Amino acid sequence: MRWNEIDRQTCSVARALSEIGDRWTLLILRDAFMRTRRFDEFAERSGAARNVVADRLEKLVEADILERRRYQTKPDRHEYRLTDKGLDLYPVIMTLIAWGDRWHDDGGGPPMRHKHGACGKRMHAVATCSACGDELDPRETTATPRDANHDYWKVT
Amino acid sequence: MRWNEIDRQTCSVARALSEIGDRWTLLILRDAFMRTRRFDEFAERSGAARNVVADRLEKLVEADILERRRYQTKPDRHEYRLTDKGLDLYPVIMTLIAWGDRWHDDGGGPPMRHKHGACGKRMHAVATCSACGDELDPRETTATPRDANHDYWKVT
Repeated sequence: MRWNEIDRQTCSVARALSEIGDRWTLLILRDAFMRTRRFDEFAERSGAARNVVADRLEKLVEADILERRRYQTKPDRHEYRLTDKGLDLYPVIMTLIAWGDRWHDDGGGPPMRHKHGACGKRMHAVATCSACGDELDPRETTATPRDANHDYWKVT
Repeated sequence: MRWNEIDRQTCSVARALSEIGDRWTLLILRDAFMRTRRFDEFAERSGAARNVVADRLEKLVEADILERRRYQTKPDRHEYRLTDKGLDLYPVIMTLIAWGDRWHDDGGGPPMRHKHGACGKRMHAVATCSACGDELDPRETTATPRDANHDYWKVT
């Protein structure tokens, strides 16, 4: 299977990755959550080549993850804002940060400090069960296809 | 900046993506959490070419995310198991699944049903604040560099 067929897998991870499974795309999304909105800032902060940034921003707009808005006329200037679908990626970015902070510490602690406005405390993201609220442990969960005859991995 | 320099960014996301920011790698990790352990199964389920699977498995072993273990001799056969560092990626995979289930539904609901053994209920992952336990909302959090002179995006 080639990568451009990956969204034909039934799996939600495969479909998600068909839109955001590119590494530069994930860096651009990180920056969007850090209130980055303009092309030049995305290019500078991601470190990607300008043509790569332009391509990834365009794909994110097509996927309805970012919205391109004009914020000035004469000359026209645009900025990129997260849509609801884009904002909903926050858990993915925050759990990636938590993992990076834990396993890629350079000795100085997390490079960014995250504060939760609601409680006022420094925090990191914890993935919890939507039913009981306990922290998820891969050894305590099971995954089963929605029907027994369903081939989870099959390309349709 | 080229991609192979990305782990020189101070950012935890950039460092994390230097190890797992490849789309085939993330599919292989998805399968590892579904109890996939053998090379042939990884190749079949990910749909990637065998040389790609071999390359990604080797990199995941080098990164200490998977461990290669011999489970049979004469002839030697090996399997791949998640390490503690690998198991700690569960929140990333589960939040990706939750996003994919929500935004890439084909009309039939989530292709996989996840059940939390501890409470016995069907669930999806929710990213919560480690301090107060509330669900995280990007509009309610702030991120600041660990010191004022620190350039978060700078390549060191």
